[in-house]
Amino acid sequence: MARTPTQRLRELGLSLPPPPTPKGSYAPVTRAAGLAWVSGQIVFENGAVVHPGTVDHDVPPAVASELCRRATLQALSALAAELGSLEAIRRVVRLGVFVAVSPGFHREHEVANGASDLLVELFGEAGRGSRTTVGVADLPLHGPVEVELLVATD
Amino acid sequence: MARTPTQRLRELGLSLPPPPTPKGSYAPVTRAAGLAWVSGQIVFENGAVVHPGTVDHDVPPAVASELCRRATLQALSALAAELGSLEAIRRVVRLGVFVAVSPGFHREHEVANGASDLLVELFGEAGRGSRTTVGVADLPLHGPVEVELLVATD
Amino acid sequence: MARTPTQRLRELGLSLPPPPTPKGSYAPVTRAAGLAWVSGQIVFENGAVVHPGTVDHDVPPAVASELCRRATLQALSALAAELGSLEAIRRVVRLGVFVAVSPGFHREHEVANGASDLLVELFGEAGRGSRTTVGVADLPLHGPVEVELLVATD
Repeated sequence: MARTPTQRLRELGLSLPPPPTPKGSYAPVTRAAGLAWVSGQIVFENGAVVHPGTVDHDVPPAVASELCRRATLQALSALAAELGSLEAIRRVVRLGVFVAVSPGFHREHEVANGASDLLVELFGEAGRGSRTTVGVADLPLHGPVEVELLVATD
Repeated sequence: MARTPTQRLRELGLSLPPPPTPKGSYAPVTRAAGLAWVSGQIVFENGAVVHPGTVDHDVPPAVASELCRRATLQALSALAAELGSLEAIRRVVRLGVFVAVSPGFHREHEVANGASDLLVELFGEAGRGSRTTVGVADLPLHGPVEVELLVATD
Repeated sequence: MARTPTQRLRELGLSLPPPPTPKGSYAPVTRAAGLAWVSGQIVFENGAVVHPGTVDHDVPPAVASELCRRATLQALSALAAELGSLEAIRRVVRLGVFVAVSPGFHREHEVANGASDLLVELFGEAGRGSRTTVGVADLPLHGPVEVELLVATD
């Protein structure tokens, strides 16, 4: 019998961080039409952005990729809080990845794989969403990566 | 009895600007699946971008936040023209905010609150959408902010 | 009797390129709620990005506009592969256009018209989607433009 996303998470030695707190009058997750939109996630720890700066001047690509993975875990934590559990996610629909870049860096897609790979590890083929990845000038509070997630629910 | 968004707008001393005119062969609003997508809004007045430039070198953050509010009013004007009235909006689903930034500016989320706060003032909890805010290198016609809105309709 | 998108494509002397290959563990297209999301498209030829660089320092705006057209053809190719044919597209819902810009360039909307105009040529009014266009610092593999497409299906 296939393992659930929660079981896979445990097998990977991962756990969901606390659900993210919006930095303004917006919602962590909204639902309509059998879909759930998660607000863009920047990785925070103890109230501060982790590894602020741009890739790859301040933040090595491998670290940025790991931050994409952690931002995705934050997004999943928001979804689990809203939907009751990760098992209520039917499939990943779209992943938006923004990478704050230094001049000369052109490998945003490799950074974004930190998010995509985790979703496939947890949800199998249902975790393979569409994806749009861009390099941006800056992100809120100097975050190096921001991950936005859209999923279909039951 | 709860006031309608149109009543709240009037109480705030605000009114909807004329519906925006697309700068190309695209639509102000499209509808599908009980949702309505509004094209990205940059604030125009008399055919010109208001306060062109980047935040905070050319445009102070408080001005940019007010422009987010005005861009949101433009988006709502487009929706009212398409749907008949603001009362046809069931809830705000997603807000996308792009802020054209100067080097060293990292408070895009505060700028974006100009959009989010207005939506909650007008629609109450139904105005609290998910949100993705990023800092970008430039926006069309040197606009300092661009606001994209997705809502659920009746 | 109205011509089909496939017939219009032929009349324009165009053909669909091979369906794009994702650069990571994501899907070319995902479907849910009667909608289909296409991953962000950068124009590739023989495995390399066509005309890498920023607009307008490295890539003239007219070339970038033509690349938007080609990126849109790639997106349509991905949709045709997923849906069986272009005729399964009921309408264009949203177009996201990212333009990698050099300092001083502010006409991203004209570049984006390369995508919008093609969609209206092929699908008529059903091709007129909502649109969000922004200028960004960089795109994966130094691509000058990236086009993201959301359509409603039958």
